[in-house]
Amino acid sequence: MSLLVALTWEPEPWVERFKVHLPGRPIAVLGEDFDRGSIRYVATWGPKPGSLSGLPALEAIFSLGAGVDHLMGYPNLPDVPIVRVSQDDLTHRMSEYVVMHCLMHLRDQRRYDADQRAKRWAPDREPPIAGDVRVGVMGFGVLGQDAARKLKVMGFDVAGWSRSAKAVEGFEVFSGDKGLDAFLARTDILVSLLPLTPDTRGILNRSLFQKLARDGRLGGPVLINAGRGGSQVEADIVACLDDGTLKAATLDVFETEPLPQDSPLWTHPRVTVTPHNSAVSDPEMTARYIADQIRRHEAGQPFQNVVDRTRGY
Amino acid sequence: MSLLVALTWEPEPWVERFKVHLPGRPIAVLGEDFDRGSIRYVATWGPKPGSLSGLPALEAIFSLGAGVDHLMGYPNLPDVPIVRVSQDDLTHRMSEYVVMHCLMHLRDQRRYDADQRAKRWAPDREPPIAGDVRVGVMGFGVLGQDAARKLKVMGFDVAGWSRSAKAVEGFEVFSGDKGLDAFLARTDILVSLLPLTPDTRGILNRSLFQKLARDGRLGGPVLINAGRGGSQVEADIVACLDDGTLKAATLDVFETEPLPQDSPLWTHPRVTVTPHNSAVSDPEMTARYIADQIRRHEAGQPFQNVVDRTRGY
Ligand SMILES: NC(=O)c1ccc[n+]([C@@H]2O[C@H](COP(=O)([O-])OP(=O)(O)OC[C@H]3O[C@@H](n4cnc5c(N)ncnc54)[C@H](OP(=O)(O)O)[C@@H]3O)[C@@H](O)[C@H]2O)c1
Ligand SMILES: NC(=O)c1ccc[n+]([C@@H]2O[C@H](COP(=O)([O-])OP(=O)(O)OC[C@H]3O[C@@H](n4cnc5c(N)ncnc54)[C@H](OP(=O)(O)O)[C@@H]3O)[C@@H](O)[C@H]2O)c1
Repeated sequence: MSLLVALTWEPEPWVERFKVHLPGRPIAVLGEDFDRGSIRYVATWGPKPGSLSGLPALEAIFSLGAGVDHLMGYPNLPDVPIVRVSQDDLTHRMSEYVVMHCLMHLRDQRRYDADQRAKRWAPDREPPIAGDVRVGVMGFGVLGQDAARKLKVMGFDVAGWSRSAKAVEGFEVFSGDKGLDAFLARTDILVSLLPLTPDTRGILNRSLFQKLARDGRLGGPVLINAGRGGSQVEADIVACLDDGTLKAATLDVFETEPLPQDSPLWTHPRVTVTPHNSAVSDPEMTARYIADQIRRHEAGQPFQNVVDRTRGY
Repeated sequence: MSLLVALTWEPEPWVERFKVHLPGRPIAVLGEDFDRGSIRYVATWGPKPGSLSGLPALEAIFSLGAGVDHLMGYPNLPDVPIVRVSQDDLTHRMSEYVVMHCLMHLRDQRRYDADQRAKRWAPDREPPIAGDVRVGVMGFGVLGQDAARKLKVMGFDVAGWSRSAKAVEGFEVFSGDKGLDAFLARTDILVSLLPLTPDTRGILNRSLFQKLARDGRLGGPVLINAGRGGSQVEADIVACLDDGTLKAATLDVFETEPLPQDSPLWTHPRVTVTPHNSAVSDPEMTARYIADQIRRHEAGQPFQNVVDRTRGY
């Protein structure tokens, strides 16, 4: 009946929440003593190789975040359903991040920050408005669609891009390799909320940036990546910022995290760095979500948000 | 049949737009030669004393912005309708500003900015979400209600405060002196979109800040003023920031504009200064709006958004 908590983070706040939402169930923590034969569920983020083996009663693995790339590369991943966390709090947090950073680019907030440092009073008398700016959301799943809806309420002209063709009311959705060039050609602010898979690794590179719209109101294309760092080629981002292929970038995720001290991204004047914090999993909401999934499963219903291992997300 | 353009700004982009939207009508510019007897309408911002006198055929004055405080103190203001500009572009721009700055406070963006400068990777593992934060919008008219609706879509817990009691679906609206204390007591982020009138002059002062909620998730109350600088007491804002009565402030408007070089607001670490640019009047949209109002009037219909001189807004 046990749940095993296997984390690279400090497990304490999680264990405490699981105890509240799974009353009466033993909770084991990786690194402490426990009976491997008793473990039916694992809740994990970035498990160390080997830590998920030798669990004969295992029925499901819960990923404590929306992404599962940290599990997909795991050697000998047990053949049980992988359930990813998809809960409203995380989704809403991501939309807050995306809307805020799109507005900061739209309204040139970094120029006003610099003006303030220089005590310069220099209002722009004809600034663009959200309706003048085209946002393209790459990865049009749970997160991408919520962000898109909110960007649209703010007035932005929004389209999406996904792997499979899909109809989402109120939005033009491009798909696959066939749809990519047309999607990029109408995009002033590119927001990536892609999962990391073999197909999306390194996709945010110079050849893609060169296809972004160059006739927009912002003075050049802008990149926002809050998906996964493995999707971006940081050397290309820096070079494209320096030669004008990109105007600015806001990055929450990086090839290596924490971002190394010698990365030029930290100090680039047109880069905003945030520490993979755009949408953290809240222990309270996540524990509640996982407890719900366990109850569904034990009542004979299927898990929700099960990862497709062949797609990798 | 003429329109007189009387501006403290560079009139050229405005004159050009009026010519497009009022084809065939003579457009006069203050400071150039024109026949005062021919002027039926004035479009103005901050007119110099005397410039609006001696216009015997005057039928209306258009204020080129949402506020009319620049006219209310004008000596011997002609007794014709004062029509203020209220157009969607300006409203949407203001909502962009309010939503962006509320999100920047919610998400502690200034801390991440400082962390980036220090190359510090320090994610907050349990940050608040918009639903944890109460925004109070003072001035619940055209601008306040649009901003409130968008803040609510982003998840914030929003209430309004207005002069007269009113029912606005989806929001608790407090009103008048009687409602003020209860409104402030439930407010973590105070957004002022008040017009400047004798009643609102200096209202944003220490005694008001002391009534804001102190039990919120942001670590102290935040002020955002995008209404008018005359409503704020800047010495109180600085002192309240320094003694913890306020946590942070974002100010678009000031007692004196441009903000004087020696103002401590420029360099205060928890103040964001923008140059009265939160919602500029777009010459194209404004000229179109004024041309519409003139056509309505000349077809025998009443002007819209006429200022009530006794209220002062
Ligand atoms: N920075 C952070 O703090 C943070 C937090 C949470 C999540 N994330 C990242 O956000 C990602 C998305 O989360 P989600 O909940 O929105 O996932 P989701 O619902 O599975 O959506 C993923 C979207 O990406 C699309 N996609 C996948 N592979 C693609 C490809 N090769 N080409 C084009 N589109 C492709 C999918 O297309 P289909 O619709 O055709 O399947 C889908 O639209 C997560 O995987 C995670 O990496 C980051
Ligand atoms: N920073 C900028 O760039 C910028 C741009 C545009 C406008 N503004 C400012 O924004 C102001 C509001 O514009 P708007 O179009 O929203 O005006 P509006 O539609 O007339 O709304 C004004 C609101 O303020 C309330 N109010 C007025 N006096 C009050 C008092 N003494 N106590 C409590 N509430 C009071 C009104 O109450 P009732 O509903 O009871 O009448 C109304 O809700 C303008 O006057 C201008 O000063 C600033």
